[in-house]
Amino acid sequence: MIKLKSVFINGLGLIGATMARIIKAASPTTTITAFDSKQENVTTMVAAGVVDQTVDFATGASQADLIILATPVSGICESLHQLAQLDLKPGVLVTDVGSSKETILRAAEPLMDRGVQFLGGHPMAGSHLTGSQNSRLDLLANHSFFLVNGNASPTTIKAYQALLVPAQLHFSALTAEQHDQLVSATSHLPHMVAFALTNTIIPEVDDMAIDPGIPSGGLLDTTRIAKADPDMWTAIFTSERADLLAQIDQFQKQLTRLRTAISVDDQESIHDQLQAANTARRRLEDKR
Amino acid sequence: MIKLKSVFINGLGLIGATMARIIKAASPTTTITAFDSKQENVTTMVAAGVVDQTVDFATGASQADLIILATPVSGICESLHQLAQLDLKPGVLVTDVGSSKETILRAAEPLMDRGVQFLGGHPMAGSHLTGSQNSRLDLLANHSFFLVNGNASPTTIKAYQALLVPAQLHFSALTAEQHDQLVSATSHLPHMVAFALTNTIIPEVDDMAIDPGIPSGGLLDTTRIAKADPDMWTAIFTSERADLLAQIDQFQKQLTRLRTAISVDDQESIHDQLQAANTARRRLEDKR
Repeated sequence: MIKLKSVFINGLGLIGATMARIIKAASPTTTITAFDSKQENVTTMVAAGVVDQTVDFATGASQADLIILATPVSGICESLHQLAQLDLKPGVLVTDVGSSKETILRAAEPLMDRGVQFLGGHPMAGSHLTGSQNSRLDLLANHSFFLVNGNASPTTIKAYQALLVPAQLHFSALTAEQHDQLVSATSHLPHMVAFALTNTIIPEVDDMAIDPGIPSGGLLDTTRIAKADPDMWTAIFTSERADLLAQIDQFQKQLTRLRTAISVDDQESIHDQLQAANTARRRLEDKR
Repeated sequence: MIKLKSVFINGLGLIGATMARIIKAASPTTTITAFDSKQENVTTMVAAGVVDQTVDFATGASQADLIILATPVSGICESLHQLAQLDLKPGVLVTDVGSSKETILRAAEPLMDRGVQFLGGHPMAGSHLTGSQNSRLDLLANHSFFLVNGNASPTTIKAYQALLVPAQLHFSALTAEQHDQLVSATSHLPHMVAFALTNTIIPEVDDMAIDPGIPSGGLLDTTRIAKADPDMWTAIFTSERADLLAQIDQFQKQLTRLRTAISVDDQESIHDQLQAANTARRRLEDKR
Protein backbone atom coordinates (compact mmCIF):
# COMPACT_ATOMS: atom_id res chain seq x y z
CA MET A 1 0.00 0.00 0.00
CA ILE A 2 1.50 3.30 -1.07
CA LYS A 3 1.65 5.91 1.65
CA LEU A 4 1.87 9.56 0.74
CA LYS A 5 3.68 10.76 3.86
CA SER A 6 4.60 14.28 2.90
CA VAL A 7 2.45 16.64 0.92
CA PHE A 8 3.33 19.99 -0.67
CA ILE A 9 0.49 22.32 -1.62
CA ASN A 10 1.24 25.22 -3.94
CA GLY A 11 -1.46 27.87 -3.46
CA LEU A 12 -3.49 28.16 -0.25
CA GLY A 13 -6.63 29.79 -1.55
CA LEU A 14 -10.08 28.34 -0.93
CA ILE A 15 -9.35 24.96 -2.50
CA GLY A 16 -5.71 24.57 -1.53
CA ALA A 17 -6.50 25.35 2.09
CA THR A 18 -9.51 23.04 2.06
CA MET A 19 -7.37 20.23 0.62
CA ALA A 20 -4.92 20.81 3.49
CA ARG A 21 -7.74 20.49 6.03
CA ILE A 22 -9.01 17.30 4.42
CA ILE A 23 -5.61 15.62 4.29
CA LYS A 24 -4.75 16.63 7.86
CA ALA A 25 -8.05 15.12 8.98
CA ALA A 26 -7.43 11.93 7.00
CA SER A 27 -3.85 11.47 8.19
CA PRO A 28 -2.66 13.68 11.06
CA THR A 29 0.89 12.29 10.82
CA THR A 30 1.23 13.30 7.16
CA THR A 31 3.47 16.36 6.86
CA ILE A 32 1.89 19.23 4.96
CA THR A 33 4.09 22.01 3.63
CA ALA A 34 2.76 24.88 1.54
CA PHE A 35 3.57 28.01 -0.40
CA ASP A 36 1.35 30.96 -1.20
CA SER A 37 2.27 34.36 -2.60
CA LYS A 38 0.22 35.91 0.23
CA GLN A 39 2.18 35.08 3.35
CA GLU A 40 -0.85 35.51 5.60
CA ASN A 41 -2.65 32.63 3.85
CA VAL A 42 0.13 30.31 4.97
CA THR A 43 0.66 31.70 8.48
CA THR A 44 -3.07 31.42 9.16
CA MET A 45 -3.08 27.75 8.20
CA VAL A 46 0.12 27.05 10.14
CA ALA A 47 -1.36 28.72 13.20
CA ALA A 48 -4.46 26.55 12.76
CA GLY A 49 -2.28 23.46 12.87
CA VAL A 50 -3.38 22.42 9.39
CA VAL A 51 -0.16 23.24 7.53
CA ASP A 52 3.09 22.23 9.24
CA GLN A 53 5.56 24.51 7.50
CA THR A 54 5.84 27.20 4.89
CA VAL A 55 8.44 26.50 2.18
CA ASP A 56 9.47 27.84 -1.19
CA PHE A 57 8.25 25.99 -4.29
CA ALA A 58 11.42 24.13 -5.17
CA THR A 59 12.06 22.91 -1.61
CA GLY A 60 8.48 21.86 -1.05
CA ALA A 61 8.26 20.05 -4.36
CA SER A 62 11.53 18.16 -3.93
CA GLN A 63 10.58 16.81 -0.49
CA ALA A 64 7.04 15.69 -1.27
CA ASP A 65 5.41 12.34 -2.03
CA LEU A 66 2.34 14.26 -3.20
CA ILE A 67 2.36 17.69 -4.86
CA ILE A 68 -0.98 19.51 -5.16
CA LEU A 69 -1.02 22.49 -7.51
CA ALA A 70 -3.77 24.82 -6.37
CA THR A 71 -3.09 28.20 -7.96
CA PRO A 72 -5.11 29.58 -10.91
CA VAL A 73 -4.79 27.56 -14.13
CA SER A 74 -2.01 29.64 -15.69
CA GLY A 75 0.03 29.23 -12.50
CA ILE A 76 -0.55 25.48 -12.55
CA CYS A 77 0.81 25.26 -16.10
CA GLU A 78 3.88 27.26 -15.09
CA SER A 79 4.42 25.05 -12.07
CA LEU A 80 4.22 21.91 -14.22
CA HIS A 81 6.97 23.22 -16.47
CA GLN A 82 9.09 24.08 -13.43
CA LEU A 83 8.55 20.63 -11.94
CA ALA A 84 9.79 19.04 -15.16
CA GLN A 85 13.16 20.66 -14.42
CA LEU A 86 13.42 19.69 -10.74
CA ASP A 87 14.65 16.56 -8.96
CA LEU A 88 11.59 15.07 -7.35
CA LYS A 89 11.18 12.05 -5.05
CA PRO A 90 10.76 8.67 -6.70
CA GLY A 91 7.13 7.66 -6.99
CA VAL A 92 5.89 11.20 -6.39
CA LEU A 93 2.37 11.99 -7.53
CA VAL A 94 1.77 15.44 -9.00
CA THR A 95 -1.84 16.56 -9.15
CA ASP A 96 -3.87 19.75 -9.44
CA VAL A 97 -7.31 21.21 -8.70
CA GLY A 98 -7.61 23.50 -11.72
CA SER A 99 -10.89 24.08 -13.54
CA SER A 100 -9.67 23.18 -17.02
CA LYS A 101 -8.00 19.92 -17.93
CA GLU A 102 -6.98 19.93 -21.60
CA THR A 103 -4.65 22.87 -21.04
CA ILE A 104 -3.22 21.37 -17.89
CA LEU A 105 -2.71 17.85 -19.27
CA ARG A 106 -0.81 19.40 -22.17
CA ALA A 107 1.37 21.38 -19.76
CA ALA A 108 2.06 18.18 -17.83
CA GLU A 109 3.52 16.37 -20.85
CA PRO A 110 7.20 17.30 -20.27
CA LEU A 111 6.81 16.13 -16.67
CA MET A 112 5.18 12.86 -17.68
CA ASP A 113 7.84 12.35 -20.35
CA ARG A 114 10.33 12.24 -17.46
CA GLY A 115 8.36 9.39 -15.93
CA VAL A 116 6.74 11.48 -13.18
CA GLN A 117 3.14 10.53 -12.38
CA PHE A 118 0.50 13.16 -13.09
CA LEU A 119 -3.21 12.96 -12.23
CA GLY A 120 -5.48 15.86 -13.18
CA GLY A 121 -8.09 16.76 -10.61
CA HIS A 122 -10.97 19.22 -10.34
CA PRO A 123 -13.25 19.64 -7.33
CA MET A 124 -16.52 21.39 -8.20
CA ALA A 125 -16.76 23.85 -5.33
CA GLY A 126 -19.10 26.80 -4.95
CA SER A 127 -17.80 29.72 -6.94
CA HIS A 128 -18.38 32.87 -5.02
CA LEU A 129 -16.21 32.20 -2.00
CA THR A 130 -12.48 32.81 -2.20
CA GLY A 131 -9.51 32.68 0.14
CA SER A 132 -8.20 30.35 2.82
CA GLN A 133 -10.38 32.08 5.41
CA ASN A 134 -13.39 30.40 3.79
CA SER A 135 -11.78 26.95 3.68
CA ARG A 136 -13.75 24.23 5.49
CA LEU A 137 -13.34 20.50 5.95
CA ASP A 138 -16.88 19.98 4.61
CA LEU A 139 -16.70 22.54 1.77
CA LEU A 140 -16.80 19.79 -0.85
CA ALA A 141 -19.12 17.33 0.92
CA ASN A 142 -21.36 15.64 -1.65
CA HIS A 143 -19.65 17.60 -4.44
CA SER A 144 -18.12 16.14 -7.58
CA PHE A 145 -14.36 15.71 -7.90
CA PHE A 146 -13.33 14.93 -11.46
CA LEU A 147 -10.25 12.79 -12.10
CA VAL A 148 -8.53 13.12 -15.47
CA ASN A 149 -5.60 10.77 -15.41
CA GLY A 150 -2.35 11.31 -17.24
CA ASN A 151 -0.09 8.41 -16.26
CA ALA A 152 -0.67 7.73 -12.57
CA SER A 153 -0.92 4.09 -11.54
CA PRO A 154 -4.18 2.77 -10.08
CA THR A 155 -2.55 2.14 -6.69
CA THR A 156 -1.16 5.68 -6.58
CA ILE A 157 -4.58 7.11 -7.41
CA LYS A 158 -6.15 5.00 -4.66
CA ALA A 159 -3.57 6.26 -2.16
CA TYR A 160 -4.50 9.84 -3.09
CA GLN A 161 -8.22 9.17 -2.80
CA ALA A 162 -7.62 7.63 0.62
CA LEU A 163 -6.28 11.00 1.78
CA LEU A 164 -9.51 12.65 0.61
CA VAL A 165 -11.98 10.35 2.40
CA PRO A 166 -13.01 12.94 5.02
CA ALA A 167 -14.20 15.24 2.24
CA GLN A 168 -17.07 12.94 1.22
CA LEU A 169 -16.49 13.53 -2.47
CA HIS A 170 -18.21 11.99 -5.47
CA PHE A 171 -15.37 10.95 -7.81
CA SER A 172 -15.88 10.69 -11.59
CA ALA A 173 -13.21 9.71 -14.11
CA LEU A 174 -13.31 11.56 -17.44
CA THR A 175 -11.06 12.35 -20.37
CA ALA A 176 -9.72 15.90 -20.57
CA GLU A 177 -12.04 16.68 -23.50
CA GLN A 178 -15.10 15.28 -21.72
CA HIS A 179 -14.22 17.23 -18.59
CA ASP A 180 -13.77 20.54 -20.35
CA GLN A 181 -16.98 20.18 -22.33
CA LEU A 182 -18.93 19.19 -19.22
CA VAL A 183 -17.61 22.10 -17.17
CA SER A 184 -18.17 24.50 -20.03
CA ALA A 185 -21.81 23.44 -20.31
CA THR A 186 -22.70 23.05 -16.64
CA SER A 187 -20.62 25.79 -15.03
CA HIS A 188 -19.18 28.32 -17.46
CA LEU A 189 -22.35 28.83 -19.48
CA PRO A 190 -24.61 29.28 -16.41
CA HIS A 191 -22.17 31.85 -15.01
CA MET A 192 -22.14 33.74 -18.29
CA VAL A 193 -25.93 33.74 -18.40
CA ALA A 194 -26.20 34.88 -14.78
CA PHE A 195 -23.82 37.80 -15.41
CA ALA A 196 -25.71 38.90 -18.54
CA LEU A 197 -29.12 38.46 -16.90
CA THR A 198 -28.08 40.50 -13.87
CA ASN A 199 -26.74 43.27 -16.11
CA THR A 200 -30.07 43.26 -17.97
CA ILE A 201 -32.49 43.29 -15.06
CA ILE A 202 -30.97 45.37 -12.30
CA PRO A 203 -30.05 48.50 -14.26
CA GLU A 204 -33.51 48.38 -15.89
CA VAL A 205 -35.28 48.18 -12.53
CA ASP A 206 -33.04 50.91 -11.11
CA ASP A 207 -34.06 53.16 -14.02
CA MET A 208 -37.74 52.63 -13.26
CA ALA A 209 -37.28 54.53 -9.99
CA ILE A 210 -40.01 52.61 -8.17
CA ASP A 211 -40.15 50.41 -5.09
CA PRO A 212 -39.58 47.03 -6.75
CA GLY A 213 -40.48 45.19 -3.55
CA ILE A 214 -38.83 42.05 -2.21
CA PRO A 215 -36.75 40.17 -4.81
CA SER A 216 -38.48 36.92 -5.72
CA GLY A 217 -36.86 33.51 -5.32
CA GLY A 218 -36.65 33.09 -9.08
CA LEU A 219 -34.80 36.36 -9.56
CA LEU A 220 -32.37 35.55 -6.75
CA ASP A 221 -31.80 31.99 -7.94
CA THR A 222 -31.15 32.77 -11.60
CA THR A 223 -28.69 35.53 -10.71
CA ARG A 224 -27.03 34.09 -7.58
CA ILE A 225 -23.81 33.02 -9.26
CA ALA A 226 -23.33 36.56 -10.59
CA LYS A 227 -21.77 37.03 -7.15
CA ALA A 228 -18.81 35.02 -8.42
CA ASP A 229 -15.35 36.58 -8.28
CA PRO A 230 -14.74 38.78 -11.35
CA ASP A 231 -10.97 38.13 -11.35
CA MET A 232 -11.36 34.36 -11.30
CA TRP A 233 -14.06 34.38 -13.94
CA THR A 234 -12.31 36.77 -16.29
CA ALA A 235 -9.40 34.32 -16.21
CA ILE A 236 -11.71 31.38 -16.87
CA PHE A 237 -13.58 33.09 -19.72
CA THR A 238 -10.36 34.12 -21.48
CA SER A 239 -8.66 30.75 -21.11
CA GLU A 240 -11.68 28.64 -22.12
CA ARG A 241 -12.83 30.83 -24.97
CA ALA A 242 -13.47 28.23 -27.70
CA ASP A 243 -15.56 25.90 -25.54
CA LEU A 244 -17.51 28.78 -24.06
CA LEU A 245 -18.34 30.42 -27.39
CA ALA A 246 -19.66 27.07 -28.62
CA GLN A 247 -21.86 26.81 -25.53
CA ILE A 248 -23.17 30.35 -25.93
CA ASP A 249 -24.11 29.56 -29.51
CA GLN A 250 -26.08 26.49 -28.39
CA PHE A 251 -27.83 28.57 -25.75
CA GLN A 252 -28.63 31.26 -28.33
CA LYS A 253 -30.27 28.57 -30.46
CA GLN A 254 -32.58 27.52 -27.61
CA LEU A 255 -33.35 31.11 -26.69
CA THR A 256 -34.18 31.92 -30.31
CA ARG A 257 -36.31 28.79 -30.58
CA LEU A 258 -38.40 29.91 -27.63
CA ARG A 259 -38.46 33.56 -28.68
CA THR A 260 -39.68 32.62 -32.16
CA ALA A 261 -42.46 30.40 -30.82
CA ILE A 262 -43.59 33.25 -28.56
CA SER A 263 -43.45 35.86 -31.32
CA VAL A 264 -45.64 33.79 -33.68
CA ASP A 265 -47.89 32.62 -30.84
CA ASP A 266 -47.12 28.93 -31.46
CA GLN A 267 -48.63 27.70 -28.20
CA GLU A 268 -47.93 24.06 -28.92
CA SER A 269 -44.23 24.69 -29.51
CA ILE A 270 -43.96 26.91 -26.43
CA HIS A 271 -45.63 24.26 -24.29
CA ASP A 272 -43.41 21.49 -25.70
CA GLN A 273 -40.25 23.45 -24.92
CA LEU A 274 -41.39 24.32 -21.41
CA GLN A 275 -42.48 20.76 -20.73
CA ALA A 276 -39.13 19.42 -21.95
CA ALA A 277 -37.28 21.80 -19.63
CA ASN A 278 -39.57 20.98 -16.71
CA THR A 279 -39.06 17.23 -17.16
CA ALA A 280 -35.30 17.54 -17.61
CA ARG A 281 -34.87 19.81 -14.61
CA ARG A 282 -36.92 17.55 -12.32
CA ARG A 283 -34.77 14.60 -13.39
CA LEU A 284 -31.68 16.56 -12.37
CA GLU A 285 -32.98 16.96 -8.83
CA ASP A 286 -33.08 13.21 -8.32
CA LYS A 287 -29.30 13.05 -8.63
CA ARG A 288 -28.70 15.04 -5.44
CA MET B 1 -64.08 51.61 9.54
CA ILE B 2 -65.22 49.46 6.65
CA LYS B 3 -65.70 45.80 7.49
CA LEU B 4 -65.56 43.22 4.71
CA LYS B 5 -67.79 40.61 6.34
CA SER B 6 -68.32 38.21 3.50
CA VAL B 7 -65.75 37.20 0.94
CA PHE B 8 -66.19 35.29 -2.33
CA ILE B 9 -63.09 33.72 -3.91
CA ASN B 10 -63.30 32.57 -7.53
CA GLY B 11 -60.58 29.98 -8.11
CA LEU B 12 -59.10 27.92 -5.29
CA GLY B 13 -55.70 27.09 -6.72
CA LEU B 14 -52.48 27.84 -4.85
CA ILE B 15 -53.11 31.55 -4.44
CA GLY B 16 -56.90 31.51 -4.03
CA ALA B 17 -56.65 28.86 -1.34
CA THR B 18 -53.80 30.70 0.38
CA MET B 19 -55.82 33.93 0.36
CA ALA B 20 -58.66 32.00 2.02
CA ARG B 21 -56.33 30.77 4.76
CA ILE B 22 -54.98 34.25 5.36
CA ILE B 23 -58.40 35.89 5.60
CA LYS B 24 -59.77 33.16 7.86
CA ALA B 25 -56.79 33.67 10.15
CA ALA B 26 -57.24 37.45 10.12
CA SER B 27 -61.00 37.34 10.78
CA PRO B 28 -62.52 33.97 11.76
CA THR B 29 -66.04 35.42 11.73
CA THR B 30 -65.75 36.57 8.11
CA THR B 31 -67.75 34.27 5.83
CA ILE B 32 -65.70 32.83 2.96
CA THR B 33 -67.51 31.29 0.00
CA ALA B 34 -65.72 29.95 -3.04
CA PHE B 35 -66.04 28.41 -6.48
CA ASP B 36 -63.56 26.27 -8.38
CA SER B 37 -64.06 24.22 -11.51
CA LYS B 38 -62.41 21.30 -9.69
CA GLN B 39 -64.89 20.39 -6.98
CA GLU B 40 -62.23 18.68 -4.86
CA ASN B 41 -60.34 21.97 -4.46
CA VAL B 42 -63.39 23.43 -2.71
CA THR B 43 -64.38 20.38 -0.67
CA THR B 44 -60.82 20.10 0.65
CA MET B 45 -60.85 23.69 1.84
CA VAL B 46 -64.36 23.37 3.31
CA ALA B 47 -63.30 20.24 5.17
CA ALA B 48 -60.29 22.17 6.49
CA GLY B 49 -62.62 24.81 7.89
CA VAL B 50 -61.05 27.51 5.76
CA VAL B 51 -63.88 27.96 3.26
CA ASP B 52 -67.41 28.05 4.68
CA GLN B 53 -69.44 27.16 1.62
CA THR B 54 -69.17 26.33 -2.04
CA VAL B 55 -71.33 28.50 -4.34
CA ASP B 56 -71.72 29.25 -8.00
CA PHE B 57 -70.10 32.41 -9.36
CA ALA B 58 -73.22 34.59 -9.61
CA THR B 59 -74.48 33.71 -6.12
CA GLY B 60 -71.09 34.15 -4.49
CA ALA B 61 -70.44 37.46 -6.21
CA SER B 62 -73.86 38.93 -5.38
CA GLN B 63 -73.54 38.16 -1.64
CA ALA B 64 -69.97 39.39 -1.11
CA ASP B 65 -68.43 42.55 0.34
CA LEU B 66 -65.10 41.44 -1.15
CA ILE B 67 -64.65 39.46 -4.38
CA ILE B 68 -61.23 37.95 -5.06
CA LEU B 69 -60.65 36.71 -8.62
CA ALA B 70 -58.00 34.01 -8.48
CA THR B 71 -58.22 32.08 -11.74
CA PRO B 72 -55.68 32.43 -14.59
CA VAL B 73 -55.59 35.87 -16.20
CA SER B 74 -57.97 35.09 -19.08
CA GLY B 75 -60.50 33.80 -16.54
CA ILE B 76 -60.12 36.96 -14.47
CA CYS B 77 -60.91 39.12 -17.50
CA GLU B 78 -63.99 37.02 -18.26
CA SER B 79 -65.13 37.28 -14.66
CA LEU B 80 -64.76 41.06 -14.69
CA HIS B 81 -67.05 41.29 -17.73
CA GLN B 82 -69.57 39.01 -16.02
CA LEU B 83 -69.48 41.07 -12.84
CA ALA B 84 -70.27 44.21 -14.85
CA GLN B 85 -73.61 42.58 -15.67
CA LEU B 86 -74.53 41.42 -12.15
CA ASP B 87 -76.22 43.13 -9.20
CA LEU B 88 -73.53 43.40 -6.55
CA LYS B 89 -73.67 44.66 -2.95
CA PRO B 90 -73.20 48.40 -2.42
CA GLY B 91 -69.60 49.26 -1.53
CA VAL B 92 -68.28 45.88 -2.72
CA LEU B 93 -64.55 45.69 -3.50
CA VAL B 94 -63.54 43.57 -6.49
CA THR B 95 -59.90 42.55 -6.62
CA ASP B 96 -57.68 39.93 -8.26
CA VAL B 97 -54.33 38.17 -7.86
CA GLY B 98 -53.41 37.87 -11.55
CA SER B 99 -49.86 38.24 -12.83
CA SER B 100 -50.55 40.94 -15.39
CA LYS B 101 -52.22 44.22 -14.66
CA GLU B 102 -52.61 46.26 -17.87
CA THR B 103 -54.87 43.57 -19.39
CA ILE B 104 -56.86 43.19 -16.21
CA LEU B 105 -57.32 46.90 -15.52
CA ARG B 106 -58.65 47.27 -19.08
CA ALA B 107 -61.08 44.39 -18.53
CA ALA B 108 -62.25 46.05 -15.31
CA GLU B 109 -63.29 49.26 -17.06
CA PRO B 110 -66.96 48.32 -17.70
CA LEU B 111 -67.24 47.35 -14.04
CA MET B 112 -65.64 50.56 -12.82
CA ASP B 113 -67.87 52.56 -15.19
CA ARG B 114 -70.80 51.19 -13.16
CA GLY B 115 -69.26 52.67 -10.03
CA VAL B 116 -68.00 49.37 -8.62
CA GLN B 117 -64.64 49.57 -6.85
CA PHE B 118 -61.76 47.64 -8.42
CA LEU B 119 -58.24 47.18 -7.00
CA GLY B 120 -55.70 45.17 -8.98
CA GLY B 121 -53.48 42.90 -6.91
CA HIS B 122 -50.56 40.56 -7.52
CA PRO B 123 -48.78 38.49 -4.92
CA MET B 124 -45.32 37.36 -6.04
CA ALA B 125 -45.43 33.72 -4.97
CA GLY B 126 -43.05 30.92 -5.89
CA SER B 127 -43.88 29.64 -9.32
CA HIS B 128 -43.42 25.93 -9.37
CA LEU B 129 -46.06 24.93 -6.86
CA THR B 130 -49.69 24.69 -7.95
CA GLY B 131 -52.99 23.64 -6.42
CA SER B 132 -54.84 24.21 -3.17
CA GLN B 133 -53.01 21.25 -1.61
CA ASN B 134 -49.87 23.41 -1.55
CA SER B 135 -51.61 26.44 -0.03
CA ARG B 136 -50.13 27.65 3.27
CA LEU B 137 -50.79 30.56 5.59
CA ASP B 138 -47.12 31.56 5.34
CA LEU B 139 -46.70 30.97 1.58
CA LEU B 140 -46.34 34.70 0.94
CA ALA B 141 -44.46 35.68 4.09
CA ASN B 142 -41.93 38.39 3.27
CA HIS B 143 -43.05 38.35 -0.36
CA SER B 144 -44.12 41.33 -2.42
CA PHE B 145 -47.80 42.04 -3.06
CA PHE B 146 -48.29 44.67 -5.74
CA LEU B 147 -51.34 46.94 -5.63
CA VAL B 148 -52.44 48.56 -8.86
CA ASN B 149 -55.49 50.63 -8.05
CA GLY B 150 -58.36 51.31 -10.37
CA ASN B 151 -60.91 53.32 -8.39
CA ALA B 152 -60.98 51.88 -4.88
CA SER B 153 -61.11 54.37 -2.00
CA PRO B 154 -58.19 54.53 0.44
CA THR B 155 -60.38 53.30 3.32
CA THR B 156 -61.57 50.32 1.26
CA ILE B 157 -58.00 49.42 0.38
CA LYS B 158 -57.00 49.64 4.04
CA ALA B 159 -59.88 47.33 5.00
CA TYR B 160 -58.61 44.79 2.46
CA GLN B 161 -55.03 45.05 3.66
CA ALA B 162 -56.26 44.51 7.23
CA LEU B 163 -57.57 41.10 6.15
CA LEU B 164 -54.13 40.21 4.82
CA VAL B 165 -52.11 41.05 7.93
CA PRO B 166 -51.38 37.42 8.87
CA ALA B 167 -49.64 36.94 5.53
CA GLN B 168 -46.75 39.30 6.41
CA LEU B 169 -46.70 40.83 2.94
CA HIS B 170 -44.61 43.67 1.58
CA PHE B 171 -47.08 45.93 -0.24
CA SER B 172 -45.98 48.18 -3.14
CA ALA B 173 -48.26 50.49 -5.13
CA LEU B 174 -47.51 50.75 -8.86
CA THR B 175 -49.21 51.79 -12.06
CA ALA B 176 -50.32 48.96 -14.38
CA GLU B 177 -47.51 49.79 -16.83
CA GLN B 178 -44.86 49.87 -14.10
CA HIS B 179 -46.14 46.57 -12.72
CA ASP B 180 -46.11 44.77 -16.04
CA GLN B 181 -42.64 46.02 -16.96
CA LEU B 182 -41.28 45.07 -13.53
CA VAL B 183 -42.77 41.58 -13.64
CA SER B 184 -41.63 41.09 -17.21
CA ALA B 185 -38.04 41.97 -16.24
CA THR B 186 -37.79 40.25 -12.86
CA SER B 187 -39.97 37.18 -13.39
CA HIS B 188 -40.87 36.45 -17.00
CA LEU B 189 -37.37 36.97 -18.42
CA PRO B 190 -35.64 34.81 -15.77
CA HIS B 191 -38.14 32.03 -16.42
CA MET B 192 -37.54 32.21 -20.14
CA VAL B 193 -33.79 32.10 -19.61
CA ALA B 194 -34.07 29.16 -17.21
CA PHE B 195 -36.16 27.18 -19.71
CA ALA B 196 -33.72 27.86 -22.57
CA LEU B 197 -30.67 27.17 -20.41
CA THR B 198 -32.09 23.86 -19.20
CA ASN B 199 -32.90 22.82 -22.78
CA THR B 200 -29.31 23.69 -23.75
CA ILE B 201 -27.41 21.95 -20.99
CA ILE B 202 -29.27 18.80 -20.08
CA PRO B 203 -29.68 17.27 -23.56
CA GLU B 204 -26.02 18.08 -24.27
CA VAL B 205 -24.84 16.34 -21.11
CA ASP B 206 -27.14 13.39 -21.80
CA ASP B 207 -25.55 13.05 -25.26
CA MET B 208 -22.09 12.88 -23.71
CA ALA B 209 -22.99 9.52 -22.13
CA ILE B 210 -20.71 10.02 -19.13
CA ASP B 211 -21.20 10.19 -15.39
CA PRO B 212 -21.64 13.96 -15.00
CA GLY B 213 -21.35 13.73 -11.22
CA ILE B 214 -23.35 15.72 -8.68
CA PRO B 215 -25.08 18.79 -10.13
CA SER B 216 -23.37 21.91 -8.83
CA GLY B 217 -25.20 24.62 -6.91
CA GLY B 218 -24.79 27.03 -9.80
CA LEU B 219 -26.39 24.66 -12.29
CA LEU B 220 -29.28 23.92 -9.95
CA ASP B 221 -29.83 27.59 -9.08
CA THR B 222 -29.82 28.95 -12.63
CA THR B 223 -32.26 26.28 -13.80
CA ARG B 224 -34.47 25.86 -10.72
CA ILE B 225 -37.43 27.83 -12.05
CA ALA B 226 -37.50 25.61 -15.15
CA LYS B 227 -39.59 23.41 -12.85
CA ALA B 228 -42.38 25.95 -13.27
CA ASP B 229 -45.75 24.73 -14.58
CA PRO B 230 -45.72 24.58 -18.42
CA ASP B 231 -49.47 25.31 -18.69
CA MET B 232 -49.29 28.42 -16.52
CA TRP B 233 -46.19 29.72 -18.25
CA THR B 234 -47.40 29.06 -21.78
CA ALA B 235 -50.40 31.22 -20.87
CA ILE B 236 -48.16 33.94 -19.42
CA PHE B 237 -45.77 33.97 -22.39
CA THR B 238 -48.58 34.21 -24.92
CA SER B 239 -50.50 36.93 -23.07
CA GLU B 240 -47.46 39.09 -22.26
CA ARG B 241 -45.75 38.75 -25.61
CA ALA B 242 -44.78 42.36 -26.32
CA ASP B 243 -43.21 43.04 -22.93
CA LEU B 244 -41.37 39.73 -22.97
CA LEU B 245 -39.93 40.13 -26.46
CA ALA B 246 -38.60 43.54 -25.42
CA GLN B 247 -36.96 41.97 -22.37
CA ILE B 248 -35.42 39.16 -24.42
CA ASP B 249 -33.93 41.73 -26.77
CA GLN B 250 -32.35 43.59 -23.84
CA PHE B 251 -30.95 40.33 -22.51
CA GLN B 252 -29.60 39.44 -25.95
CA LYS B 253 -27.76 42.76 -25.98
CA GLN B 254 -26.02 41.99 -22.69
CA LEU B 255 -25.23 38.44 -23.75
CA THR B 256 -23.77 39.68 -27.03
CA ARG B 257 -21.79 42.34 -25.21
CA LEU B 258 -20.16 39.71 -23.04
CA ARG B 259 -19.75 37.24 -25.89
CA THR B 260 -18.01 39.84 -28.02
CA ALA B 261 -15.61 40.83 -25.26
CA ILE B 262 -14.74 37.16 -24.76
CA SER B 263 -14.27 36.47 -28.48
CA VAL B 264 -11.82 39.38 -28.92
CA ASP B 265 -10.13 38.72 -25.57
CA ASP B 266 -10.96 42.17 -24.21
CA GLN B 267 -10.09 41.35 -20.61
CA GLU B 268 -10.85 44.83 -19.33
CA SER B 269 -14.35 44.80 -20.77
CA ILE B 270 -15.02 41.28 -19.49
CA HIS B 271 -13.86 42.26 -16.02
CA ASP B 272 -15.96 45.45 -16.03
CA GLN B 273 -19.10 43.56 -16.98
CA LEU B 274 -18.52 40.85 -14.37
CA GLN B 275 -17.74 43.41 -11.70
CA ALA B 276 -20.90 45.36 -12.53
CA ALA B 277 -22.99 42.19 -12.23
CA ASN B 278 -21.26 41.19 -9.00
CA THR B 279 -21.88 44.59 -7.41
CA ALA B 280 -25.50 44.77 -8.58
CA ARG B 281 -26.29 41.24 -7.41
CA ARG B 282 -24.77 41.80 -3.96
CA ARG B 283 -26.85 44.95 -3.58
CA LEU B 284 -29.97 42.90 -4.33
CA GLU B 285 -29.23 40.55 -1.43
CA ASP B 286 -29.43 43.40 1.05
CA LYS B 287 -33.09 43.88 0.25
CA ARG B 288 -34.12 40.51 1.73
